[in-house]
Amino acid sequence: MALIVQKYGGSSVSDAQAIKRVAKRVVATAKAGHQVVVVVSAMGDTTDDLLDLAGQLAASPSQREMDILLTAGERISMALLAMAITEAGIPASAFTGPQAGIHTDAKYGRATITALIPERIARSIKDGHVAVVAGFQGINDFDDVTTLGRGGSDTTAVALAQALNADVCEIYTDVDGLFSADPRVVPAAHQLHRADFEETLELAAHGAKVLHLRAVEFARRYRVPLHVRSSFSDKEGTWISDGPAKQTLRGIVPQVALPSSKEYSVEAPIISGIAHDRSQEKITVVGLPDRPGAAAKLFEIVASVGANIDMIVQNVGISEQGRANVSFTLPEADARRTLQAISDAKDELSYRELLDNREIGILSLVGAGMRTNPGVSAKLFGALSEAGINIEMISTSEIRISVVTNLDELDDAVRAVHTAFGLDASETEAVVYGGSGR
Amino acid sequence: MALIVQKYGGSSVSDAQAIKRVAKRVVATAKAGHQVVVVVSAMGDTTDDLLDLAGQLAASPSQREMDILLTAGERISMALLAMAITEAGIPASAFTGPQAGIHTDAKYGRATITALIPERIARSIKDGHVAVVAGFQGINDFDDVTTLGRGGSDTTAVALAQALNADVCEIYTDVDGLFSADPRVVPAAHQLHRADFEETLELAAHGAKVLHLRAVEFARRYRVPLHVRSSFSDKEGTWISDGPAKQTLRGIVPQVALPSSKEYSVEAPIISGIAHDRSQEKITVVGLPDRPGAAAKLFEIVASVGANIDMIVQNVGISEQGRANVSFTLPEADARRTLQAISDAKDELSYRELLDNREIGILSLVGAGMRTNPGVSAKLFGALSEAGINIEMISTSEIRISVVTNLDELDDAVRAVHTAFGLDASETEAVVYGGSGR
Repeated sequence: MALIVQKYGGSSVSDAQAIKRVAKRVVATAKAGHQVVVVVSAMGDTTDDLLDLAGQLAASPSQREMDILLTAGERISMALLAMAITEAGIPASAFTGPQAGIHTDAKYGRATITALIPERIARSIKDGHVAVVAGFQGINDFDDVTTLGRGGSDTTAVALAQALNADVCEIYTDVDGLFSADPRVVPAAHQLHRADFEETLELAAHGAKVLHLRAVEFARRYRVPLHVRSSFSDKEGTWISDGPAKQTLRGIVPQVALPSSKEYSVEAPIISGIAHDRSQEKITVVGLPDRPGAAAKLFEIVASVGANIDMIVQNVGISEQGRANVSFTLPEADARRTLQAISDAKDELSYRELLDNREIGILSLVGAGMRTNPGVSAKLFGALSEAGINIEMISTSEIRISVVTNLDELDDAVRAVHTAFGLDASETEAVVYGGSGR
Repeated sequence: MALIVQKYGGSSVSDAQAIKRVAKRVVATAKAGHQVVVVVSAMGDTTDDLLDLAGQLAASPSQREMDILLTAGERISMALLAMAITEAGIPASAFTGPQAGIHTDAKYGRATITALIPERIARSIKDGHVAVVAGFQGINDFDDVTTLGRGGSDTTAVALAQALNADVCEIYTDVDGLFSADPRVVPAAHQLHRADFEETLELAAHGAKVLHLRAVEFARRYRVPLHVRSSFSDKEGTWISDGPAKQTLRGIVPQVALPSSKEYSVEAPIISGIAHDRSQEKITVVGLPDRPGAAAKLFEIVASVGANIDMIVQNVGISEQGRANVSFTLPEADARRTLQAISDAKDELSYRELLDNREIGILSLVGAGMRTNPGVSAKLFGALSEAGINIEMISTSEIRISVVTNLDELDDAVRAVHTAFGLDASETEAVVYGGSGR
């Protein structure tokens, strides 16, 4: 008997039929002898509908009331799912975030978990019930409900898995798992059967939308084994854990053999995959004085409006002696107020010009192989050059290289790089799938 | 400065426009210098939509989960209304039933308030905020949310008004107040400007849907002054309090003079109004043995399925010597399981036949006048007889006479009685409106 935390996103519980399908899967897991805790998001478009209503009533609604409003969505889905599971043959009880013992700080809309005491959940599963928990929500010291912000339900699931010492945290989604690239862009993309936390973190941080960055960070810190898989099929998804795959995760034996690290051929570059991101914008400050403190002042202003910047490039002396151009990327949602703040500080910063480019895309190549393989960046730039794609900015980490391209060249760039690194399914299957063939 | 509790039903907050209208009224009340606590129901059809979803997932869903589900409705409306009030210029905070300190027993779906400690509400209004409270919900000793059942939001409002020692509890609805009869049935019906608790109780118990019986009972027990009025106009509604109208309710001076008791002419029968009810069913048990304990056994069985019976008539020896026929009325919703239980106990009860009549209506004439006016029942039966309406059952209380008619004769009966008692607006206005003329 294993203890399994399963998380279902909004698309998995979009209507009564979908809820019944999830209930069937939960009951099958329980009938196989496992203890099951289910974390659920709001149904389909509920959150968007509620946001829309709020937008009609107030220009900038109070965050406290916004959290009360939005948590109604999970309240509905958790109650309905518990009813459906009970109807399908296993008693189920629904719990709000507060009832599940999820304590947070008081930052409405983007609260952080400060303590997790899942006493009622532990009691419920001990009594043979399935515990259905509302994702995305907790309670602060003022006895008010809070939301965990984007990716909150993934975080709830991983945190509960850690607190309950679960054997695995299964993240159900509408795709089969993590892929070497987005299959909608690269038809030859193949599914990853396993990944380690660092690779997954880089993929999540740079545009792969299957798993939320914050949940991966949590899982990595506490070594919670994750299994990302589809709620629409019974196929194995992607196992995410530390180092080589554990052959048995306390009873959760994978149905197919996992490739271990050594099964990767030295011939194939050791690349996990390619993430891409269309939601960033590039701001360039032209003609900033090239003196100590100028860049610091700029980024102080950017930080003061809470903008979340990703890549930064500074080119000294290109446009003019004693002046520098600084470019950085940030989420579109942060761009307007950042531009306003920089513009307001024009006299103080004494730059020449402020440029804004929304038409950019970011491609990130992720893989542990980069640490030791100096040929990776050469191959990357060669492939992009051959495909006629212009690179605007570059940034690297130990296991990632990201490049900024024109937005309309991004898809071509992803496909070219995918092919160049031998990731296309027909070429690499024998290697990646451990010799199991097609 | 007065403390006013305002309750808005689902039809008053059916969409964003309606919520804005309510917010405007709340802000106007606050800007007039009053402290305001608002109790709100779920938006429009939310509750029905949620019930429908639950019905698709489970034949008889768990009541605990059903309460979690249904309370999401008020969570949405309270958060949106608080946002809209804040946007309209007065800071507002939203509170769930549990946060408002509404403690209940554990009877999910029909919980009773066991304690009300509105500490956060008192603090909020003291800070100059409008407190918006979710109606219909509370919390039990297991830290689970409960619902108060039908009429629950009215009950929340009245209970909060009592606990906060409010000057008045305003019940906003989609009609102008209490009427001498349903204006949709009796075009000549006139609005009551005031009524006492007992009259209102009888009206609410016998079909007048404006106010819920349970809330009136609560208001009567704790002498909470009620003002039932329209959320679509600024007109005075119906004031409900004890004995003669208070001329000033701690600052809430009515905009029009209230008729005091002595303004009612002795010529006009002292009748408050006529309620009617189409939602009852009549069950007749034919040929029950006329011996001690037989009726007791019957009603024990009826009670065991939780049926809420209203009128009872027993006719001994009509159909057969030593046998009695017992008829009683009960809500349609209780009829199926009651018939089943009586049928299951046929051997034990040894009756001859079980009859069920759904096509009945109940007319109730309510007024303090009946206590001392022996001519009232004669006039009632005379009017019905003249209109050719057959009376199937009769029951009386000190301030009410109810008769059962055929369902298709009910409207005619209501109109005939309304006219006979001189309640038609053109005839009685001079009297009821205290000589103010048209």
